[in-house]
Amino acid sequence: MRYEEFTIEGRNAVLEAFRSGKTIDRLYVQDGCKDGPVQTIVREARKGDTIVSFVKKERLDQMSETGRHQGVIAQAAAYEYAQVEDILAAAREKGEEPFLFLLDGIEDPHNLGAIIRTANLAGAHGVIIPKRRAVGLTAAVARTSAGALHYTPVAKVTNLSMTMEDLKKQGLWFACADMGGEAMYRCNLRGPLGLVIGGEGEGVSRLVREKCDMAAAIPMYGDIDSLNASVAAGVLAYEAVRQRRGF
Amino acid sequence: MRYEEFTIEGRNAVLEAFRSGKTIDRLYVQDGCKDGPVQTIVREARKGDTIVSFVKKERLDQMSETGRHQGVIAQAAAYEYAQVEDILAAAREKGEEPFLFLLDGIEDPHNLGAIIRTANLAGAHGVIIPKRRAVGLTAAVARTSAGALHYTPVAKVTNLSMTMEDLKKQGLWFACADMGGEAMYRCNLRGPLGLVIGGEGEGVSRLVREKCDMAAAIPMYGDIDSLNASVAAGVLAYEAVRQRRGF
Repeated sequence: MRYEEFTIEGRNAVLEAFRSGKTIDRLYVQDGCKDGPVQTIVREARKGDTIVSFVKKERLDQMSETGRHQGVIAQAAAYEYAQVEDILAAAREKGEEPFLFLLDGIEDPHNLGAIIRTANLAGAHGVIIPKRRAVGLTAAVARTSAGALHYTPVAKVTNLSMTMEDLKKQGLWFACADMGGEAMYRCNLRGPLGLVIGGEGEGVSRLVREKCDMAAAIPMYGDIDSLNASVAAGVLAYEAVRQRRGF
Repeated sequence: MRYEEFTIEGRNAVLEAFRSGKTIDRLYVQDGCKDGPVQTIVREARKGDTIVSFVKKERLDQMSETGRHQGVIAQAAAYEYAQVEDILAAAREKGEEPFLFLLDGIEDPHNLGAIIRTANLAGAHGVIIPKRRAVGLTAAVARTSAGALHYTPVAKVTNLSMTMEDLKKQGLWFACADMGGEAMYRCNLRGPLGLVIGGEGEGVSRLVREKCDMAAAIPMYGDIDSLNASVAAGVLAYEAVRQRRGF
């Protein structure tokens, strides 16, 4: 499978991408560039919730593939995002209780790809990621998902804890991976469930943790601090599979 | 933590590394180089079971950091390997039944690092990898192991299935990850156990599979073929943890 790197460079191309409605994950703008065309681009970016980063010219030069970035480089999603509602609809269509992954700040594209792959095989209905402090659906993510992105919907939300509030009203429970919690084998991971996995560095953020109904610990018998984030997601997901599928 | 990249270049330096008894994972020799000094180096390499690859000059030029490889580049292990006996001794010292990982051809350093990290946290006593068609303990592996290489011994063996024969005589059982097997939740993963995980591409090889007492399947409910290798290792390891620790 081949995925294009959707890096869009140059003022016209970037503006065109925004106006066509393409999902742009991130816009890089050269520090100090404040002329009309660049301001128009930044305005378009802010309409669509794109993250805008102001960076030095050297950084743009380094990122540029064409050498003609004109002070702006946009990173488009290699895949279109789904809506949270699409994920719930997928569960309904299958006649299954919703089983979702919520990723609180996964920054490594290989981890995100591997987790989407796991979500697919564990029978989850979709994955929810936050807009900020997290990697989006880049080409590297698509590649490491080994095709799972074709099947498993990924929704990107502005505020993970608000999304959890909404989902709770629809009957979902949330379990977060947390070393301080109850051993996961003893948690009840059945029913309409969202598994919350923290990022590589900080784990699950306080606001998100407070919305969780359970803290599930992967027991640790070693000397180091933590599992790789995608491994932790897999371990927790398959404990949920064991319980949900009646093994 | 910082790990040096142990790439050794140039005839004298490489020969010296072999003679000092350093563990050299791989030797790259320029195609057609057959003079005395190079032949001496290749002979030393073969004594020590180093994998020797003959490659084009362009490849060496690309790998070279100094620009003065003189037709030979050696890759040393960032860590010293343990012996299989050390791993069994570690189990005895803890008064635990041996719990080992055997990796049949993991080629991606990030996967190997993540698996060593998992082995440490799941309370395994060590990891066994084969010499051929597998990545060794490179600096990238050390980094992704997140420090686990300091604690969890890794042994490198010439022939994985012969090592399994030896270990069977010492009472070990082997379970391999295999989609065609019994659901892992129903396999007995207690007692002195070696978990056998296949490589990214080919899975567990026939010879190794034939030595296994059980084939344990991670159940799959999705659309794609397989989990990431390090995720699969983690999922299987933690099902073993559940059973072994009486959860």
